[in-house]
Amino acid sequence: MKKICLSLFAVCCIIGSSKAQQDAGMMDQIYRTSFEEGLAYDNLRYLTKDIGNRIAGSTKAEEAVIWSKGLMEAMPFDKVYLQDVEVPFWDRGKKEEAYIESSKTSLKVLALGGSVSTPKEGISAEVIEVEFLADLKKYGDAVRGKIVFVNKPWDESMVETGVAYGLNSSQRSRGPAEVAKLGGIAYLFRSLSSSPDDDYPHTGGTRYVEGIDSIPALAISAKSAQRLSEELKKNAHLKVFLKNESAWKGIVKTHNVIAEWKGSEKPEEIITIGGHIDSWDLGEGAHDNGTGTMGTLDAIRTLMRLGYKPKHTIRLVFYMNEENGVQGSLKYGEIAKSKGEQIVAAIESDAGGFSPRGFDIKSSAEALHWIQTQWKPLFEEKFWVSRFLQGSPGVDSGIWGQYFPNTVMFNFRPDPHRYFDIHHTEKDVFEAVDRRELQSGVAALASLLYLVDQQINQMPK
Amino acid sequence: MKKICLSLFAVCCIIGSSKAQQDAGMMDQIYRTSFEEGLAYDNLRYLTKDIGNRIAGSTKAEEAVIWSKGLMEAMPFDKVYLQDVEVPFWDRGKKEEAYIESSKTSLKVLALGGSVSTPKEGISAEVIEVEFLADLKKYGDAVRGKIVFVNKPWDESMVETGVAYGLNSSQRSRGPAEVAKLGGIAYLFRSLSSSPDDDYPHTGGTRYVEGIDSIPALAISAKSAQRLSEELKKNAHLKVFLKNESAWKGIVKTHNVIAEWKGSEKPEEIITIGGHIDSWDLGEGAHDNGTGTMGTLDAIRTLMRLGYKPKHTIRLVFYMNEENGVQGSLKYGEIAKSKGEQIVAAIESDAGGFSPRGFDIKSSAEALHWIQTQWKPLFEEKFWVSRFLQGSPGVDSGIWGQYFPNTVMFNFRPDPHRYFDIHHTEKDVFEAVDRRELQSGVAALASLLYLVDQQINQMPK
Repeated sequence: MKKICLSLFAVCCIIGSSKAQQDAGMMDQIYRTSFEEGLAYDNLRYLTKDIGNRIAGSTKAEEAVIWSKGLMEAMPFDKVYLQDVEVPFWDRGKKEEAYIESSKTSLKVLALGGSVSTPKEGISAEVIEVEFLADLKKYGDAVRGKIVFVNKPWDESMVETGVAYGLNSSQRSRGPAEVAKLGGIAYLFRSLSSSPDDDYPHTGGTRYVEGIDSIPALAISAKSAQRLSEELKKNAHLKVFLKNESAWKGIVKTHNVIAEWKGSEKPEEIITIGGHIDSWDLGEGAHDNGTGTMGTLDAIRTLMRLGYKPKHTIRLVFYMNEENGVQGSLKYGEIAKSKGEQIVAAIESDAGGFSPRGFDIKSSAEALHWIQTQWKPLFEEKFWVSRFLQGSPGVDSGIWGQYFPNTVMFNFRPDPHRYFDIHHTEKDVFEAVDRRELQSGVAALASLLYLVDQQINQMPK
Repeated sequence: MKKICLSLFAVCCIIGSSKAQQDAGMMDQIYRTSFEEGLAYDNLRYLTKDIGNRIAGSTKAEEAVIWSKGLMEAMPFDKVYLQDVEVPFWDRGKKEEAYIESSKTSLKVLALGGSVSTPKEGISAEVIEVEFLADLKKYGDAVRGKIVFVNKPWDESMVETGVAYGLNSSQRSRGPAEVAKLGGIAYLFRSLSSSPDDDYPHTGGTRYVEGIDSIPALAISAKSAQRLSEELKKNAHLKVFLKNESAWKGIVKTHNVIAEWKGSEKPEEIITIGGHIDSWDLGEGAHDNGTGTMGTLDAIRTLMRLGYKPKHTIRLVFYMNEENGVQGSLKYGEIAKSKGEQIVAAIESDAGGFSPRGFDIKSSAEALHWIQTQWKPLFEEKFWVSRFLQGSPGVDSGIWGQYFPNTVMFNFRPDPHRYFDIHHTEKDVFEAVDRRELQSGVAALASLLYLVDQQINQMPK
């Protein structure tokens, strides 16, 4: 009996090891192909340099849609199509102006995404500076007629810069309504930048609340925020001039871009992979999110070049309008739900194209443990990818995921150190992307996609 | 009895957990201090921009020595001193020239470190191209009078670029002697660059063998190597012109820079931490190794700012001449050995200032397991530092470590993706360093130094 047990154990070990060896061999090929023949970096160059930034509803965004569709059509997908999406188009208009009235000291500002404009002649008013919106309470009626300036420095201590961003981003979105409710006439928000000396303003979405006046809302660079704060210490009654022209320009018809690679064993079970194709209207939308779209496309291309035949249907989705409305992912979810689709897994890339570190995973605890035990060892030592932790899905998967609570979701996590220095600024350009880092991420995404396709049915629910 | 055992277990858990909590708390402070108040980046700016590159024996290298000593003297060390080191000074002379004779197509080249010069008028000869020096055998006497061109492309498939570098670096050092032995008159070596389109030549040390002629040895950029290879396919008899003026210029007296922070409990037990202060004579020696010196200094400064009192003596060493002679680390080892010093641990930083990923460790298997169990969890999830693997010490620690076989050695490992694109080139400048990545590395180094100082006596041998 002992002998039989040992033999069975030995057989299991051999089968187990040969499967692991097969996976490891496939990953070796994936990494080699991505580094040697990957096109994510070249495609990114076109997207950033030849098309450029592409806010949802703009002609550039639609140009990116059409060009992306062409890229997919040149690959051996079974189906490539556009999904109609209607987005509200927000236009920044001419460059914003801001300065301290008395000294004419210029302040670097950008309208926050969704902001209304100032009157044509601009506005000039005294400033109330606080760290937190909650601090406005104590000013009572004094807020009336003022510009409110939320000057909360970034918490530099965190390696996980996404958490530092999250600590303060709600003040960006809640600010205008809370200030307007108290009679404030404009909102000035210290940019969410990980660098305290950064003189680039960082934009990002904000919002208004029905029934409360919409007031102009602008981001001020970290450095200008410090400068203004110093001047306010010397003269609490100084006035700041603000002028911006941004406005909503109605609804525009645009698209998600989708390609499908039909599964050979379970074609009705879908693995969705992708990222958003729109960007803010600054820089070139390179890390946010050119790398995510060009990276996920290249991950699939890598598997195709290796002659891989997927078991499940792999669906590549470039979502429209993640930055200011998430209409693309809402539409994707509504249609998938109405068709009763089975989306077994989702992979999203929307955190930049830096050195790949791992994936945040939304799954059961049992599935997470399984992934940490079965897959992490394949990535960790050889490919330097070691974070497989419970976490939130990406924004787009999270949105459509409301209809698919059982889908296992993977959120690609590249190195977090450099992202929030360039995020939502003029600095988010092609030159900020390193080819090896990007293609290493492509290989990590392709490896994960391969493992999900091969083994998701063995994974505990 | 059971009750007592449980209680004892509970007490141990409480002690264990409170110690781990204390370590975690200290690391939180270290990271915050490094990100918010760290000076590694500012010091690096001075070293790279105001001093610049600093090959051993140059006046710039000595300027870096004097300036570094001043930095250390401004900190609360117990002792700061210079250690005399004699180095052979190699000087590149005027810019090298290389072109294909027939077309005058320019080739980007750099003399390899240690190379002799061509005759004043240069040399012009036919070329034998091989991938491996071993392939020269089949050419027999045909090598005589020729330039040998080793054109081995970089293996792009590896995330661990250090291994790809190691695969081919011995051809750089062995080449000149092996070629000269066969009658070749010059050596042209494809640069060790991780980017196949790189048009910057990468220098690096080479060597001659006594009794064999010293021939000029030059690195050619990856792109120029491809161009030359293509031309050779069209015309195997084309001639290449090479001219360089580099030469050894005798022995120069210079220094290691050393500072000591005396231990409060075991002052006779020393923890050495540092990196090399010299660089190649190109670019600004930013990642190689400005970040290593300025980073280790700032790690100690971080602990000092936190009011830490070390148990062991912490000795900061800036080694001279790592790049082309390792005379600094040899001298350090000889003196330490002659004094019978107890160096219990060594930490070296000489792999760039990119996002910190972990440490290669030279220790017993038991000690490694202990580190992986006790320390890795403190770094992994929160600070994204997760590689604690068996590996080689840094070059300098490895050299003096020959006298100290029982010293536990830690080799700092930053992210490997970008290093070998800029290594030993004009591209290794301050702008290639990111402040958050560098200060994150400082925090990782300071945290490790703290843990080593606190716990090395509990570590299994």
